[in-house]
This record gives sequence, structure tokens and C-alpha cells, in this order.
Amino acid sequence: MQESSPQTFSRVLSSMCTEPHPAAREAAEQFLATNPGDPATYETVADLERRVIDGLGELARLTTPAGYVTSGGTEANLQAIRLARNRAETRTPNVVVPASAHFSFTKAADVLGVDLRVAPLDEYRVDLDAVAELLDEDTVAVVGVAGTTEYGRVDPIPALGDLLADDGTDALLHVDAAWGGFALPFTDRDWDFRDAPVDTMTIDPHKLGRAVVPAGGLLAREESLLANLAVETPYLESTSQVALTGTRSGAGVASAAAALEALWPDGYREQYATTQATAEWLADRLMTRGYDTVPPELPIVAADLNGAVAPLRERGWRLARTEHGEAQVVVGPHVTRERLQALLADLEAVA
Amino acid sequence: MQESSPQTFSRVLSSMCTEPHPAAREAAEQFLATNPGDPATYETVADLERRVIDGLGELARLTTPAGYVTSGGTEANLQAIRLARNRAETRTPNVVVPASAHFSFTKAADVLGVDLRVAPLDEYRVDLDAVAELLDEDTVAVVGVAGTTEYGRVDPIPALGDLLADDGTDALLHVDAAWGGFALPFTDRDWDFRDAPVDTMTIDPHKLGRAVVPAGGLLAREESLLANLAVETPYLESTSQVALTGTRSGAGVASAAAALEALWPDGYREQYATTQATAEWLADRLMTRGYDTVPPELPIVAADLNGAVAPLRERGWRLARTEHGEAQVVVGPHVTRERLQALLADLEAVA
Repeated sequence: MQESSPQTFSRVLSSMCTEPHPAAREAAEQFLATNPGDPATYETVADLERRVIDGLGELARLTTPAGYVTSGGTEANLQAIRLARNRAETRTPNVVVPASAHFSFTKAADVLGVDLRVAPLDEYRVDLDAVAELLDEDTVAVVGVAGTTEYGRVDPIPALGDLLADDGTDALLHVDAAWGGFALPFTDRDWDFRDAPVDTMTIDPHKLGRAVVPAGGLLAREESLLANLAVETPYLESTSQVALTGTRSGAGVASAAAALEALWPDGYREQYATTQATAEWLADRLMTRGYDTVPPELPIVAADLNGAVAPLRERGWRLARTEHGEAQVVVGPHVTRERLQALLADLEAVA
Repeated sequence: MQESSPQTFSRVLSSMCTEPHPAAREAAEQFLATNPGDPATYETVADLERRVIDGLGELARLTTPAGYVTSGGTEANLQAIRLARNRAETRTPNVVVPASAHFSFTKAADVLGVDLRVAPLDEYRVDLDAVAELLDEDTVAVVGVAGTTEYGRVDPIPALGDLLADDGTDALLHVDAAWGGFALPFTDRDWDFRDAPVDTMTIDPHKLGRAVVPAGGLLAREESLLANLAVETPYLESTSQVALTGTRSGAGVASAAAALEALWPDGYREQYATTQATAEWLADRLMTRGYDTVPPELPIVAADLNGAVAPLRERGWRLARTEHGEAQVVVGPHVTRERLQALLADLEAVA
């Protein structure tokens, strides 16, 4: 393997993932050969998974959380929709998602045979009237995003909860906080299990939680919700399984436990403060230089760089693009001001 | 994390996974923070994934293999059924599987809304007449297992191919070689893409391939088959994605590439010879002691231990059970004769 080295993160501005915390890396290396998918055989890692779910419950203010460590946000979103579908009676289920929802919902809809109804946005957040119009007796879940992938916006989660209560439907409220969940506890935004009647949530340790991939998170308000996912398991020492995958990564679980132990709450609070300040600093510099920039409410900056993404890529910068064509800088903990100074200098050079 | 250490493998006889090869472990540690799910950003690991798929193609004798590294055998089996379902016209799809099929097919059937038709076995292998009877115009795939989870048996794959050809259906032939795929190239069994008109195959580096978890494998005879899985990907630098998950483990991919480089073909051949000889040795000892034992055709031994599994568990031994109640010893590379001598001594003590 000598000839292949991983790229460094120094010019990666497009990734929701970041450099893992040293304690997370160490734990991952120690648990590389364990399988939380077989808890009766691998008891230690099963205990660690319990700790991770309890920790995620603390972040999202759920006292006795049910859930498990997934392969990532896609699995968590898919499983939330699957459990909503499985508990409903309808044979023609639909799910209402905001136009800002991650493409994993499109994938989940194809996999699960569920109709996806997309509600338009109003100032980057879901339009509540549109959601109300799309809802019907076949709706099994309504999704709110807490930290959208493109602009880091938080949908009006409590209002979505009110809407479901008023409508009297049995649809579940799912919150996708895959990326935002490790920043939002330090803001005044309403997004968690105490702010609203949230049923399920995606919240990923392997993004801002600083765990190694794969360590996503699915939380559920009640254990009984997860029962809709259970499949019997012969061969294994345990008798049923709710995860989408079979064998799972002990490294991901152990690293998530280690990261939470090292960083919750002070380390994550500091990380949020630093990255948010850096995002605002970058947005300010871009606006000063005349680029149309969306003010960052969480540490993501989107700006129209007038076609500079391709020449910047030639200089090694990895920038994602929004659907409207803006360049996007996800300000993870590895994205420092020094690195962004270099980006701004290169931007000036290629403009 | 000081207080938590992973268990050692020394008494784990129930796991399809094993100790990773040292080169695989080293590569995994180096690539812990990369994401093959975003290949335009993480180019090195995307190249490594190409190498893994080419390597798996060599094992299964497919010259220009299509495929990708999955989170494990469950994802690979689910995706094979999903692509078969998506390319078919029927709205009431079914899949025919042998009674020996892994429970991931039950999970896939629930997730995908596909009817599972279970064909009975004849001497541990699927009954061909039963398959022929279950097949109809709504059948989107027929599954053969190459190395069953309980007894390590190989279904008559070429005969399944003939049956599909004679029947004139458009159903795909999927082979589940998740566990067996790294042993079968060194046997005279018919199981691969050249032995039969196989369309898709599950073959997992993180089992006998000695990669770290998560590194499963999905192979397809044609790239066009995978197109049935494609979902558009905004935000990322690449434009579409066939994997079930979004972010994926660079560690799994890099470790699979390293293991294949280190072990294919001589290392795997030697591993097969050793583990098979050990399995036969154990079966012989058990039969001599009067236990009903199923002769191992691949390195798995199933034997009726007359209720000794529970007392052995108290002594730290981890044994799975077959549906018929036999204890099962999966003879991975970590299961040495010395360890099995200790098992036999404990068996004598508790009997």
C-alpha cells in the first residue's frame, strides 16, 4: 500500500465529515475487529453502543432514548421512513419532505416503495402551508431538517409538530439532524425531542461528532417504534436485529463513544463557537469582495463565486455546489482561518 | 476508553468475520478519514475501490467486473434484489431463495416490498424441482448460495442457470458467496461467473478476505445492471450514486485492497487448505466422541453437542446454533487446532 496515501483534509471544503478526534481514532483502531451486529458474542462493543445512544439522547434531550449506531445518515433516514411505513396500515404510503431534504430520502423512497412529496421552501425553510396541503391519510411521516445540507437552515420543527397534531394524522415526525445535531445544542434553535413531539431523529457522530466513519445515529422516542424494524436472526447468539445491515463496525461504535466522552459538552460547544465564527468571518470577507453570499446560521457558507469553482479545483480545492450553483464551504473543525486565507488568495488569483 | 477493551477472538467460534490481516489493519488505520461515497473529492480511495472490484472479479472469474464495496453482505444481497426488482416490469415482484438463504434476504424482502418464496432443501442444497415450481412471470431473481451460513454447502448454481434459461424468464441469477467466495476458488465446486450465467454476486472481503469491517462486495456482470440503482446526487462533486449508503468507509475499502494485494492467490489458498484441514480434523474428533456431525465441505463444522453450548458459553466459548439446534464452529483463520483442543477438553469436562 506504500504507493497509495490518503489525501489530506487541508483543501477539502466540501465534506460533512472531518478529521476524527484523536481519542476516536485510537478507539477505532482498537475495535477494528468487533461486530456490534452480534451483541451476544461481542458484549463490550454492545455496551459501548448503549453509551453512544445515551449520549446522543443527551444532545437531543431525550431521557430514555431508543436507537442504534447506523452506517450513516442515509441508513438512519431510510430506517426512520421504513419504520413509519411498516407501522402504518396504508398500501400507498407517502412521506412529506422539504425541498431541502438530503438526497438520501430520494434513495429511501425508491428502496422502500414510498411516494415522496416535496414541499417547497420559503426563505430556505419548509413552507408550512405547503406541508399542510400535501398531507393526507396515506402520509406515514413528515420530515423536518435541522441543519440543511446546502445552507445549514433549521426547519420550523415545533410548527411541524403542531401541524401534525391539528391534522389528527398518525404520521410520525422525523428530524434529520445528521450534520446539525452536534452544533444545535449550543444555539437557541428549536429542534430536539423536548422542543417538539419528535418521534425519530438522525444524528451522526461521524460528522461534527468527530467519530470515524461509519458511525451514524438513529434515535427513537420509544423502543416500540424500533420494533417495526425487527427481523429474526438465526445463526447469531441474539435473536432479532433492527439494523439495516448485519455485521456492523465496532470501530465506528467505539470511536463514537470515545469522541462523546472526550468532547461532550465543552469540546463540542467550543468547536461550534469556533467554526461558526470562522464561517461568519469567511462570509464577511466574501461579501466585502462583492460575492453574493448566504449568511451562515450554522457553519456552512454558500456564495456565488462566478465560476471560480473549476479553476479552484485545479489548485486542489474541493468545493461542493448548491442546486442553484453557489459554491459551498462546509466549515468543519479542520477548516481553519489560515486555510481559508489561502482559499481567498487563490480566489483572487483565478477571478 | 481505558476501561473498555475489545474481547479477543480466541474463543469466538461463531463469527463469519475473523482477525484482519496486518496489512489490512494498517491500511484501514491510514484511511480512517476518507469517503469513497464521494469519489471526486476522495480520488485515491476511489482508485483503491476500483482495484478491490477488479480483484473480486479475479476471484469470481469475471473479466470486466462492475460493482462496489458495500457495508457488508446484507447490503450486497439487498441491492442485488433491489436492482432485479427495479429493472422488472411487475408490480408484485417475488424472489425465490433456498431455505438455507441468509436472513438478510428476509430483511431485504421487508425493506423492498418483495415477496420471498422459500424453496426447500435436499441434502442441504436447494431442491431444483421446488425452485422450478415456485418460479413465475413475477419472479425477478433466483438466489443460489455458495457456502451456506449453517453448513457451508454450495447450491447447484449451473443447474439454477439452466433452469432460468429453460424457463425463458427474465429473472436474474444472484449468487450469495458472502462467506464462501474467498475459499471456493481453491475447490472444484461450480459457483462463479464462468461456471454459470450468474448476473450478480455477494462476496465479502471482511469475512474470509481478511479485510476490516465494513468491506462487503457486490459484483455485477454488466455495468448496466447497476444503473438500476442510480440516484442523482446533488451537493457532491460526482453526480450519481449506486450504493445504498451515502458516506462510506475508506478504511474498509483500503483494507480490502491491501488484503487482496497481500493474499491473492497464494495466501488465500493456504488459508483455505489450513482451515479446511482443521475443520475436517475437528469433525473427525467429534464423530469419534460419538457426536452427530455434518461433514464439512467448507470450513464450517455443525454437530449436535447434546446441550453443551450453554455450559461452554459459561467458559467463554462463543458458538452459534443451527436452526436444527446443532452447535456450529466457523473455522476462520483465527480458529487453530490448539484452540479447538481446548474446546474439546472443555466439552469433555461439561458433558
